[in-house]
Amino acid sequence: MQVNKKEERRDPKITTIKLKKAAENVVEEAHKHKNPYIDIPVRSLSNVHFNEQQSIIELGKELQRRYFFNVAQAKKFLQTFLIASACKTLIDSGKTTSIRDLYYMTKHTIGDSNENTFDDQMDSDLIIEDLEVTIDALREELNLFASNRGALVGPLKLIDSGDKIDCSKMGSGGWSVPSIVEKNLVEFESCEAKFILMVEKDAVWRRLNEDKFWKKHKCILIHGQGMAPRGVRRLLFRLVNELKLPLYVFVDNDPWGFYIYSVIKQGSINLAYESQRMAVPSAKFLGLSSFDKDIYKLPDNVTIKLNEQDKSRAKQIIQYPWFKSKEWQKELSHMLKQGVKLELEALSAKGISFVTDTYLPDKINNKKWLD
Amino acid sequence: MQVNKKEERRDPKITTIKLKKAAENVVEEAHKHKNPYIDIPVRSLSNVHFNEQQSIIELGKELQRRYFFNVAQAKKFLQTFLIASACKTLIDSGKTTSIRDLYYMTKHTIGDSNENTFDDQMDSDLIIEDLEVTIDALREELNLFASNRGALVGPLKLIDSGDKIDCSKMGSGGWSVPSIVEKNLVEFESCEAKFILMVEKDAVWRRLNEDKFWKKHKCILIHGQGMAPRGVRRLLFRLVNELKLPLYVFVDNDPWGFYIYSVIKQGSINLAYESQRMAVPSAKFLGLSSFDKDIYKLPDNVTIKLNEQDKSRAKQIIQYPWFKSKEWQKELSHMLKQGVKLELEALSAKGISFVTDTYLPDKINNKKWLD
Repeated sequence: MQVNKKEERRDPKITTIKLKKAAENVVEEAHKHKNPYIDIPVRSLSNVHFNEQQSIIELGKELQRRYFFNVAQAKKFLQTFLIASACKTLIDSGKTTSIRDLYYMTKHTIGDSNENTFDDQMDSDLIIEDLEVTIDALREELNLFASNRGALVGPLKLIDSGDKIDCSKMGSGGWSVPSIVEKNLVEFESCEAKFILMVEKDAVWRRLNEDKFWKKHKCILIHGQGMAPRGVRRLLFRLVNELKLPLYVFVDNDPWGFYIYSVIKQGSINLAYESQRMAVPSAKFLGLSSFDKDIYKLPDNVTIKLNEQDKSRAKQIIQYPWFKSKEWQKELSHMLKQGVKLELEALSAKGISFVTDTYLPDKINNKKWLD
Repeated sequence: MQVNKKEERRDPKITTIKLKKAAENVVEEAHKHKNPYIDIPVRSLSNVHFNEQQSIIELGKELQRRYFFNVAQAKKFLQTFLIASACKTLIDSGKTTSIRDLYYMTKHTIGDSNENTFDDQMDSDLIIEDLEVTIDALREELNLFASNRGALVGPLKLIDSGDKIDCSKMGSGGWSVPSIVEKNLVEFESCEAKFILMVEKDAVWRRLNEDKFWKKHKCILIHGQGMAPRGVRRLLFRLVNELKLPLYVFVDNDPWGFYIYSVIKQGSINLAYESQRMAVPSAKFLGLSSFDKDIYKLPDNVTIKLNEQDKSRAKQIIQYPWFKSKEWQKELSHMLKQGVKLELEALSAKGISFVTDTYLPDKINNKKWLD
């Protein structure tokens, strides 16, 4: 799969052409006095599978047909083209907007009825997902963004909306990662980093930035304030694929941390159709490992007992095909057996810069990671 | 009150001296064979009042004495000095950390007992607040930070941890506002802005940034991703007081939006002791006003019904001394009477750049704000 090559050629015009094509099909069917329709890939669990070869979660080929002349489908049909039309307007005018804003832009009362095009943002969000998967365009290519979180520092120069950004001179706050990082907005200029370190928590990122970890170890240091948002995931994908950098993920030792790692690596079940251009199967899990407490001699009182939700989540994760390797099974079983979890901050019990000076260098230099 | 002048002279050394002084008092009392104690200002509602003259929420003069030889107080006494000692270590080493990290740094089992110094971060957070108010130092001066949120763009050059940052060349993401923006970390170099526009939502901030609103109107454009976090509040305070800029606040038309505005302007009841160095009494409320729907002819279907929580919150807010002016009473009553709220995104029903091209220029140029 030449995901990259395909990637390079993406262009806003292509998205416009696809949107127009979908509309033209409808017009054509109408002229033929037929019932206009649109074919939408099914986004349910039944149509999601794990591609072992590529090591990503993928959407299958199942389609559902949405008709215009169908009492149950007419409104959704209308909504689909209303959203498509608004996205085309956005792309044509070179503007981007939030999915909440798009909801307000497309919400109106239909004719003389009391019926609104949308009553709730949940409805328009679902239609956006339908549209993304139907015309095979990421939300960002429809000029839509989600809330942006996450920041980056490191020896990387880039251009963001025409401004040159030197990510090694961004002070304590770093470059705030925008939610849309597509090529027409963000271009990499030069990079001296040898790897990427993705940290779950901004507080730990800040510690590492203050200690200038990224300078000493020549890396790009990035966080996503919890679950990596789309902008961060897409940026990681581009950094790994375009700059050929290894990616290390550093998360809490709990089922949520493992999940954050797995979404970065394999993609998520809910958004399986995005994996091809968001997932980074080469990502490595650096920590925290359930074995770290003993290896690094952390005191007992920094552990937190797994609650019922943690336990059932861990038992779920242990069944996932992408956690089937012997090492991962050992890792997850150990956590369940110990019955405790560890936060990244637990390393501070060994001193404020233990994470910078000891833990991370040991993990990276001695390749102590999980795949 | 020469808040500013006092401000200028703040220095990390002063905080160290205060921390040492508190400890020396204890040692002195012990040498005198007396029961060591520390006097802590009371942070309950009974000791909070609205200073009409300065127009900020303030802490009163009530004190509580915390003793060492007192079964009920001994542990808290220990915790207070444990936190104080850890903060002194931080300041001495020039490092900052998160309040979660400080919890882990100071958590340990006491001697041979089964008793931990802290069992929950909630305990250490309360002690941090005790310490802040006792030695009259902001948490940031103890080198502690909360989660950082918020971003800034505009014609402002500053120095952040030694790096020169030109906030007019920060692309689409902007300068990510750090959680500590004290003088030793963030210095203003030059500024050509004529005012500050603080926006509640990052999506609207992004719209305004993309439309280069800040360039056309020469302003600093900042958001706090919801409730303004401490870093953003403290930065607003410094921008207003050091650069003498007017501050306009732009929030949703709902009780939560009004509350965000009031915290920026008068401070909050919970953190009343910070108002002197966080609150900006000169801040103006630009919108959304409950009257905007009619004035700007927004369609009916962009309004959202007030729920019970909104209503009771609005009825609470209408009683606050700082909302007592005739204009605010009219504003709040109108919202309650109409029974609906409006989000900033509702303006997009009039077109994607209506907020940039029409709404904000009209509000600012014609001084259509509330005080």
